[in-house]
Amino acid sequence: MTKSILKEGERIDQLFSTDVKIIQNREVFSYSIDSVLLSRFPKIPSRGLIVDLCSGNGAVGLFASTRTKAPIIEVEIQERLADMAERSIHLNHLEDQVQMINDDLKNLLNHVPRTGVDLILCNPPYFKVSETSKKNLSEHYLLARHEITTNLEEICDIARHALKSNGRLAMVHRPDRFLDIIDTMRKYNLAPKRIQFVYPKMGKDANMLLIEAIKDGSTDGLKILPPLFVHKENGEYTDDIFEIYYGKNGKKD
Amino acid sequence: MTKSILKEGERIDQLFSTDVKIIQNREVFSYSIDSVLLSRFPKIPSRGLIVDLCSGNGAVGLFASTRTKAPIIEVEIQERLADMAERSIHLNHLEDQVQMINDDLKNLLNHVPRTGVDLILCNPPYFKVSETSKKNLSEHYLLARHEITTNLEEICDIARHALKSNGRLAMVHRPDRFLDIIDTMRKYNLAPKRIQFVYPKMGKDANMLLIEAIKDGSTDGLKILPPLFVHKENGEYTDDIFEIYYGKNGKKD
Repeated sequence: MTKSILKEGERIDQLFSTDVKIIQNREVFSYSIDSVLLSRFPKIPSRGLIVDLCSGNGAVGLFASTRTKAPIIEVEIQERLADMAERSIHLNHLEDQVQMINDDLKNLLNHVPRTGVDLILCNPPYFKVSETSKKNLSEHYLLARHEITTNLEEICDIARHALKSNGRLAMVHRPDRFLDIIDTMRKYNLAPKRIQFVYPKMGKDANMLLIEAIKDGSTDGLKILPPLFVHKENGEYTDDIFEIYYGKNGKKD
Repeated sequence: MTKSILKEGERIDQLFSTDVKIIQNREVFSYSIDSVLLSRFPKIPSRGLIVDLCSGNGAVGLFASTRTKAPIIEVEIQERLADMAERSIHLNHLEDQVQMINDDLKNLLNHVPRTGVDLILCNPPYFKVSETSKKNLSEHYLLARHEITTNLEEICDIARHALKSNGRLAMVHRPDRFLDIIDTMRKYNLAPKRIQFVYPKMGKDANMLLIEAIKDGSTDGLKILPPLFVHKENGEYTDDIFEIYYGKNGKKD
């Protein structure tokens, strides 16, 4: 039955810990662990308004939907990805809670009230345009990974206007952009408050970071949360990650 | 024989992994794990000039001395602590390598050539003066822990003048001062390059950070090193810390 909602090359992946199903297409865009971790990182408000910026195929907002009754607005500039997200919303019967807007995030205030958002989740493009990109990247991946259609500056600027005072911006990003991130956040009155570094395994440098900032917050009292390791020595997921993917009593099938 | 070099209330502690002995006095000042970790954090140059700022009873520079032939200059403003360090230098027969200067670090350039230092180690006072201090702290601890006689600004300013271009400043500090630290470093052309967070145990927030900056370096390519845990669940030192204290085949006696 669900087959009919898939286009060529697409498949349905399930995040077993949440029962949420996501339409993926390796040629175009697939969510990965960064989306899963971002959706679990901030405290998700039980009510209010949540926005998922740079939402891609909608994974972050869809995962977050299982932890709140609050409406979630997803914003994605790429029509092909927004279309996948739209169909995933239907697939999960979340039309009443989750809405996909296919637009440039610069136009966010056309869709949500100014200073009306409680939480913004964002898995932005990680790489500066100047950084060498893989030549055979599809255009979809190129836009999702490189700061071509948007960048940190624009995201923090729009977040500042959209968030309530004391509203929060939660982002996943790369440690080598860390200084840029905290500088840009602070430039737009977003005070970094909680940071968690993610390590591929014990003994390796961090390759991901999760960061939460509070609009109009003081920059005192920054917390560096316990580190998260993705893999054990033997290459399997650590217990923490296994639980995030498959739930507390989960079993990989 | 060594007894005679001790003053009232003092004892000798040994860092077994290095054989270095340090004169301590709990009433006045004792080195602790932050000094041990700082002395092991940066690559210690095999030659050139090393400075240990805010050296207290000299522990950081003395530990570092076992990893290099380079001369090490320790600078401490408190006469009582400088005197303990002076005697520890003799106790370890390191008079030819390690020199204690009892002076304000503002005067560092009276003792080392401008832009002549390869590495500065610094375990500075952690707390802003405004932060409530424990009432019964001795004056010695008060000065060692609070930014009364010096502060981040002054340390980074003097480091910039004393370091060679591409010389390094390595510091141990607290995560809640993290934003201050990276802002102040960069203000004085010290580019943060390596950061390691230290956690009291698994599942707890970081309570210490080690940071290394390069003078005139680019701010690209920041690395977040593997996390360091101090204690296991049962309260014992982790293997990493045990090895740092007692050596690879060490045994606590």
